Amino acid sequence: MDTDLYQPTERTRLRRLPERGAYDRPSVHAILDEGFICHVGFVVDGQPFVIPTGYARVGDTIYLHGSSGSRLGLRPGMDVCVTVTLLDGIVLARSAFHHSFQYRSVVVLGRTRLVTDPEEKDTALSALMEHFVPGRSTDVRPGDRRELAATAVLALPLEEVSAKVRTGDPKDEEEDYDLPYWAGILPLTLEPGRPVPDSRLKPGIPVPSYVTAWSRNGKR
Amino acid sequence: MDTDLYQPTERTRLRRLPERGAYDRPSVHAILDEGFICHVGFVVDGQPFVIPTGYARVGDTIYLHGSSGSRLGLRPGMDVCVTVTLLDGIVLARSAFHHSFQYRSVVVLGRTRLVTDPEEKDTALSALMEHFVPGRSTDVRPGDRRELAATAVLALPLEEVSAKVRTGDPKDEEEDYDLPYWAGILPLTLEPGRPVPDSRLKPGIPVPSYVTAWSRNGKR
Repeated sequence: MDTDLYQPTERTRLRRLPERGAYDRPSVHAILDEGFICHVGFVVDGQPFVIPTGYARVGDTIYLHGSSGSRLGLRPGMDVCVTVTLLDGIVLARSAFHHSFQYRSVVVLGRTRLVTDPEEKDTALSALMEHFVPGRSTDVRPGDRRELAATAVLALPLEEVSAKVRTGDPKDEEEDYDLPYWAGILPLTLEPGRPVPDSRLKPGIPVPSYVTAWSRNGKR
Repeated sequence: MDTDLYQPTERTRLRRLPERGAYDRPSVHAILDEGFICHVGFVVDGQPFVIPTGYARVGDTIYLHGSSGSRLGLRPGMDVCVTVTLLDGIVLARSAFHHSFQYRSVVVLGRTRLVTDPEEKDTALSALMEHFVPGRSTDVRPGDRRELAATAVLALPLEEVSAKVRTGDPKDEEEDYDLPYWAGILPLTLEPGRPVPDSRLKPGIPVPSYVTAWSRNGKR
């Protein structure tokens, strides 16, 4: 068995456009490490719910950040689907039918586990902060006992996982390439703007370099 | 009854941080009209799945773009949750605990309906194209009969809907405002890059102005 591969299952194997599927760890991890907001799907009374939340990967585990207080929400021991989507552009083909998006996405199926071990929780919370803003975790007041108790961290093993990637030129019907319409990719990226200081920021505290240098694409 | 309000239900009323909730049509529609990728949650054999897909709003209906071919996928008559998330920034508080994201999100619960009426399907497909790239729908080869048959459009009524918005300064504990850590917002926006022409683009076709002027924020 190739240990660098997540074994596709009946539930994760791509049926439509299978050439866009990827199951190897490097491809999956690269997408998970570039994104930092996921959409978590869970079921309550037969009704699916999908909520956005922050996450981080540590090895073959995904940690989700939550609150201990939500009633209808995500709980430990639930079957979930965690989807991370990086939108890379809009694909403009010559025909309306072949318009598409450039994207890289990962789907993780599994059951949530509440992180109770203090050491694992500490690791997870540091990983979350470092994943959102690399450099921030050592430049902040750490959580106290009350705050840590009010923060729920859920773990999800990376076992049933697939990635899907769409790149490259538009695909048009062969007879359409002579049509007079522009075709190509409009790239899209999540870009940071100028940092906005808190209106109550104490004078004399400069914007940290890890904030001004922030980039989603790992070029940090 | 205020007709400009979606009636909150037990399933859409925000319990945690209710001050972030919004149920009025203008707030909900503004978010739906700025986003164009949603995450759709649906349930198969008790397992939730979450997939990203394009959407557009027409009045009080959301149209989702799909293919007629996916086996495990989204089908008509399914209970779904459609979530649209606009990530506006990272909230850096003085304490680790109060870190957060700036975001605007909408959650729609309901049952999918396959669009079969040719006129409604045509309206939906034009709305989708115009929503992704305003100006494109009249500058492209339209779908032929075979392509239209291969394109499934699902409708979802905007009835059970809520929006959630986080804006403004970080919220820190009162005693933390004197700490020497920078606090504020790192804004994030989805920005277009330089259009990349198809490698097979016929010479002499310039990049259309609706592509160079594209902006997610409706400043088009």
